[in-house]
Amino acid sequence: MAAIKALTFDVFGTVVDWRTGIAREAKALLGPKGHTLDWGAFADAWRARYVPAMAKVSSGERPFVILDELHRENLVEVLADVGVGGLSDAEVDELNLAWHRLDPWPDVRQGMGRLKRRFILASLSNGNVRLVVDMARRAGLSWDAILGAEVARAYKPQPEAYDAAARILRLAPGECLMVAAHPTDLAAAAARGFRTAYVHRPLERGPGREPRRPAQGTFDFEVDDFVALAAVLDA
Amino acid sequence: MAAIKALTFDVFGTVVDWRTGIAREAKALLGPKGHTLDWGAFADAWRARYVPAMAKVSSGERPFVILDELHRENLVEVLADVGVGGLSDAEVDELNLAWHRLDPWPDVRQGMGRLKRRFILASLSNGNVRLVVDMARRAGLSWDAILGAEVARAYKPQPEAYDAAARILRLAPGECLMVAAHPTDLAAAAARGFRTAYVHRPLERGPGREPRRPAQGTFDFEVDDFVALAAVLDA
Repeated sequence: MAAIKALTFDVFGTVVDWRTGIAREAKALLGPKGHTLDWGAFADAWRARYVPAMAKVSSGERPFVILDELHRENLVEVLADVGVGGLSDAEVDELNLAWHRLDPWPDVRQGMGRLKRRFILASLSNGNVRLVVDMARRAGLSWDAILGAEVARAYKPQPEAYDAAARILRLAPGECLMVAAHPTDLAAAAARGFRTAYVHRPLERGPGREPRRPAQGTFDFEVDDFVALAAVLDA
Repeated sequence: MAAIKALTFDVFGTVVDWRTGIAREAKALLGPKGHTLDWGAFADAWRARYVPAMAKVSSGERPFVILDELHRENLVEVLADVGVGGLSDAEVDELNLAWHRLDPWPDVRQGMGRLKRRFILASLSNGNVRLVVDMARRAGLSWDAILGAEVARAYKPQPEAYDAAARILRLAPGECLMVAAHPTDLAAAAARGFRTAYVHRPLERGPGREPRRPAQGTFDFEVDDFVALAAVLDA
């Protein structure tokens, strides 16, 4: 079996806690305007539109557009759904940047620091490059390369999203380890020849909504956080 | 005038000393085989084939291929020219990776460290992503994003190389500052609306071959190194 040379990371949910961050940013912008929403539910509603919006690109129903644009279209719809009106275009733009300002899970910086000594670390997110750049600068994350949907012009779990990452890294797929909290993402990566590491993120969907752990042996590695991943990879 | 948000860097010659590094790597691989070349002249001969090779891509004479591939084709020709035969394919591959193992000029790490606090730092090189990744990991450079020819599918000074960088960074061209030791690169960036910083690298072509400084006022900034660039940009 080929040695692992690079780790490719899902970002939303795996590296950063999107639900807490989106709820916080929505409250910070909309709260002072007198809106009193369930901010976690607002984050859930915005996120719920993510997969259907990407599906329209992946099916060919519309040309590729970056996630910032899909997020903004979805935001306009969610704001209407929850009865928030009267925001200026600039305010909607600003709230849309909430996705650029998400915090990593507590283990991420330490774990990535150890992993980086031994492996190339690349983001393989559906987020566009500038989104991942802003997030990394704010959180002090140090990616070797930002790959993913915008670079591949294809959203995960489309095969090209993974194929492009391995090609750009000049690695065989089996030299790449996909790291994600989502079995769908990992299964799609495995189908393209990647090795796989499942990271359990019990709070991604909020308290009391812990996902079921995949059956043992489904993926090459199954860990509780990035520090544990560094340990199992001898990094 | 718009505030500068990102710095986009030429790499070969501007960030790293390609001539010294290529000469060192060629000597390390070929010297033990009994070859006694002028190693600096070998580096010059390899580099001399770079612009003509890219021109065949830019003119449409051949489809886009990454710089690692152009470098390898050029290497095979240069080895034949200087009478070095009998290398295995793996040895040629290894020597071709010399471009991944170049050292930064002495001011680079300190200057980039200061600049990074204030600006997004992106490579905008004709080198492919993996080449710039390997170089950065070895040299301890910390890019926010690796852009350039492979991502744009166009070599500088083609307009698309610059346009793609600004587009991916989601910035107006005037919010991007192109940093390079080469007037041709800077002029092409300026033609796409970028602001420009000339960095004087007197030793790029070797001792006794200092390039002429551009006339004062040709570019927005003219500095002697990256620390001076950080100073003029208040970083």
